[in-house]
Amino acid sequence: MEEFNTERLGRLTGMLKRRGVILPAFEIHGGAAGLYDFGPVGGRLRNRVNQTWIDHWQSLGNIVEISCPTITPYSVLEASGHVGEFSDYLTECSECGEASRADHLVEDIHPNADTLSKDELSKLIEEHNPQCPACGASDWGEIEAQNLMFNTKIGAGLSGRQGFLRPETAQGMFTSFTSIYRHFRERLPFGAIQTGKGYRNEISPRQGMIRLREFNMAELEYFIDPEIAPIHDFSLWKNPVTLIADDGGEVVMTLEKAVDNGVIRHPTVGYFMGWTMDFLLSVGINPSFLRFRQHESTEMAHYAQDCWDAEILGSYGWIECVGIAHRGCYDLTAHEEATGQRLRAWRTFDEPKVVEIDGWTTDGAKAGPAFRSLAGKVNQFVEGLPSDSSFPLSQNIEGTDLQILPEHVKRVQRTENVNGEWFVPHVVEPAFGIDRIIWHLLDHSYTETEKSGEDYAYLSLPEVIAPVDVTVLPLFEKDGMDLLAQKIHRDLCSRKNIFSVYDASGSIGKRYARADEIGVPWCITVDHESLSDNTVTLRNRDSGEQTRVSIDDLPF
Amino acid sequence: MEEFNTERLGRLTGMLKRRGVILPAFEIHGGAAGLYDFGPVGGRLRNRVNQTWIDHWQSLGNIVEISCPTITPYSVLEASGHVGEFSDYLTECSECGEASRADHLVEDIHPNADTLSKDELSKLIEEHNPQCPACGASDWGEIEAQNLMFNTKIGAGLSGRQGFLRPETAQGMFTSFTSIYRHFRERLPFGAIQTGKGYRNEISPRQGMIRLREFNMAELEYFIDPEIAPIHDFSLWKNPVTLIADDGGEVVMTLEKAVDNGVIRHPTVGYFMGWTMDFLLSVGINPSFLRFRQHESTEMAHYAQDCWDAEILGSYGWIECVGIAHRGCYDLTAHEEATGQRLRAWRTFDEPKVVEIDGWTTDGAKAGPAFRSLAGKVNQFVEGLPSDSSFPLSQNIEGTDLQILPEHVKRVQRTENVNGEWFVPHVVEPAFGIDRIIWHLLDHSYTETEKSGEDYAYLSLPEVIAPVDVTVLPLFEKDGMDLLAQKIHRDLCSRKNIFSVYDASGSIGKRYARADEIGVPWCITVDHESLSDNTVTLRNRDSGEQTRVSIDDLPF
Repeated sequence: MEEFNTERLGRLTGMLKRRGVILPAFEIHGGAAGLYDFGPVGGRLRNRVNQTWIDHWQSLGNIVEISCPTITPYSVLEASGHVGEFSDYLTECSECGEASRADHLVEDIHPNADTLSKDELSKLIEEHNPQCPACGASDWGEIEAQNLMFNTKIGAGLSGRQGFLRPETAQGMFTSFTSIYRHFRERLPFGAIQTGKGYRNEISPRQGMIRLREFNMAELEYFIDPEIAPIHDFSLWKNPVTLIADDGGEVVMTLEKAVDNGVIRHPTVGYFMGWTMDFLLSVGINPSFLRFRQHESTEMAHYAQDCWDAEILGSYGWIECVGIAHRGCYDLTAHEEATGQRLRAWRTFDEPKVVEIDGWTTDGAKAGPAFRSLAGKVNQFVEGLPSDSSFPLSQNIEGTDLQILPEHVKRVQRTENVNGEWFVPHVVEPAFGIDRIIWHLLDHSYTETEKSGEDYAYLSLPEVIAPVDVTVLPLFEKDGMDLLAQKIHRDLCSRKNIFSVYDASGSIGKRYARADEIGVPWCITVDHESLSDNTVTLRNRDSGEQTRVSIDDLPF
Repeated sequence: MEEFNTERLGRLTGMLKRRGVILPAFEIHGGAAGLYDFGPVGGRLRNRVNQTWIDHWQSLGNIVEISCPTITPYSVLEASGHVGEFSDYLTECSECGEASRADHLVEDIHPNADTLSKDELSKLIEEHNPQCPACGASDWGEIEAQNLMFNTKIGAGLSGRQGFLRPETAQGMFTSFTSIYRHFRERLPFGAIQTGKGYRNEISPRQGMIRLREFNMAELEYFIDPEIAPIHDFSLWKNPVTLIADDGGEVVMTLEKAVDNGVIRHPTVGYFMGWTMDFLLSVGINPSFLRFRQHESTEMAHYAQDCWDAEILGSYGWIECVGIAHRGCYDLTAHEEATGQRLRAWRTFDEPKVVEIDGWTTDGAKAGPAFRSLAGKVNQFVEGLPSDSSFPLSQNIEGTDLQILPEHVKRVQRTENVNGEWFVPHVVEPAFGIDRIIWHLLDHSYTETEKSGEDYAYLSLPEVIAPVDVTVLPLFEKDGMDLLAQKIHRDLCSRKNIFSVYDASGSIGKRYARADEIGVPWCITVDHESLSDNTVTLRNRDSGEQTRVSIDDLPF
């Protein structure tokens, strides 16, 4: 592993583009900032990393995959807080009209510019008068909060309604809570995962794959009963981990110790940090370039109880690639309040509790005819009133203004045995940026060396995510070597989870190099001998070792 | 297989919702027409059908997966023709303002209302004055073409630009052509596939999963040299297939014969019809309910040379689920013309051709200093001029207006050996609607029967796409049976491509029924005996057969 630097970054980016791994989207049409393609090599890489992530969490045994639309009605994202809160501060250059993020303009002046308030940003820009990155002028308009969601309209004409492209997949898990709860036979804890596109209309996208306008997300929402102490097996992670706690100090300790010490404030957060680490290492992240950083209280959403980022070091410095947050009951409560639907789980008491009821109920004989289809709702409302309520009482129920008269109600005093109660589950959420992880595993796998005095670069990708499993090379395209090689190639492609590339042009050395460059773990060479004895040369990418094996014994 | 009818459709839809297979999205927020969730059971079903499709095409050996953004700049979809052509005729009710598709209003009056022109629709609506489906009035506004793409704005402020959500994944394959061509070492034929979301802002979505605003697509763009006759092995499909040719007649014959007879007009179209059929049957489509229908010339895009739909019969009648079109050179040419970039392949002649060149070239000594960095482009332009051109000549090259004077050019006459030529490949495109296919495989798998005198329904899903592979059931949750069952369950979940569900409540019979209802192929029951001899009961969904096997010999 060499040091990260700008020249190496340029060579890596060039290779990824040339070989069809990752490349700017719509480039023949002039491109579009913040949008990338996974090309003919990268497409399968993306798919495999994504599927490895799904398999990883499903192996826990109480996690299911769901898939929700990306187009989301206004009301859903209003309830979640995104309509009000999901924004950056923007200012426009009075000279050229180009929009810039206010914090980007002063990031050389302030170490944490993205945490500053609107007033603080205004003051700094006024004092330092930074140049416009587009035209060089220094004349800025008012700073305004710009919502970062992509807008669209669902439907046409007068019946059309406002919607957004989802900024995260998480809301789908919250709005589907009832269905997931039913699937798990109403037993906590359980989780739901979703992978797919998320969208963020960045004001000025930068840093290649790090800050995209459309990105591949993967999120788990794990629902727990806050009154039951979780039991997790931390013996899986014996090696100490680098942790930057919110007091700023870097400590190296096991996850178990960090949970016991209270550095990590909830055991399930710590447990998922371990599972996150396992996933990242399995897809090729170098453990020396991984750390966990705790959010400071000012940085964390107001409802979050603890939050840790998995940060990965690469060509762009330390970058947040995963966030693992304890979100309390915030999300389900927000959707409950917005919709009036119950998003709760039932907790059975160890022993039934005796509850004194002193209050009101409806008199069915009078209330039934008076309120008809709403009588049930009125009864629910009246039974929830305190004992000192007085009647008549006006109330809007389901959009209808009702008068509840003394004759409709009765006073009740009684005791009841209560077996349990409804409560809002808490949520622990590991949220992954798949593109950032793919970028970093490429960055960590990319190795520059020399071979026979020439520059030589390869990707040391783990087999589980290598976009091409094997390359099949006929020594020459004649005498039947090409036909045999093609037969082997097609046979390999038809096997489950195996993808082969047939490469016939150039010297064998050049073709090995081409395979190494995109991280193909194995090469198979078909030569004259193959035609007579049914054997081929099998070459390993990492060791360079070549062995002669029968075609029937290929290890795929 | 029973007959499709409305009552059965209601029971199936209810089961799919109750069990978390497919359900209306955002329902707690009042829902949104044309948007569906794949729930805790359906999520993995969607994933498996999608991945089976990818594996199916990759097994051909010359097909790669790519992944492009869904947000697409205006210029790309202007070039493809979608900005101009992708629309439905809409009219608004003058009473309530609700928008309706004009062809939907007259579909009871005309058998092919969706093929009618604007004038024809206007005339029919004026004559028959249909009622508004929303308010019942009969007073319609002007008919207007409504573009069906979802609009959005990429970026903020003055630097923002118009974009759309992609109506299909295909354009990504065309704009990436150069990268795919390079990947295949510049050798045709080859293909690129993409799966992911497509969007269509339907005016009035109907028919559940059939007409969605956001859907799962899967498309292959296969690039061929039109001058090379393709060779395909049709012996794979010995059984005759139901074909409705564009002369209206239904014929039953093998694909090979249909290609030989010219009923199917291009061999590659016929070959992909076979591959399409294989895929559909592998995921559970009933072959008796599958047919291929050829587009009539009026129905087909003007550039298409032949187009066949795979239609599947289910609760909504015969529905188009796959389109297999020969698109000629239309798409690549359209992007070439819009961008000025070359999207071509090189064809080497069998023997070099001698070509007479009579025309112009630049005089480097004069043109070099005059045009500097543009001199190369000017030379290219001048060499492309016909021999009867005259100078001076004005030309805009790369945005600069240039005067090409007589002194800048020289007359040339010479012969040259030409080894080959650039040409625009033709494209054959199989395009799949994954949601429609999932709907139909559920519809075909859903079987209603009786068991012990009670209604009993199950899904006879193929194992390869069953969303749950196995259910593990402790006979009772005590004496360690629950712990052993959980251990088996977690162990199965950690195996690649295996997903298990743990179900502990209710009688064993009820739990078998619950597993059958969502098509789980296998159930494992842990009982008292299991604790002593390490065996379990393995039950097969379709045969109902129960066998006693050792835990170490489970067939997963």
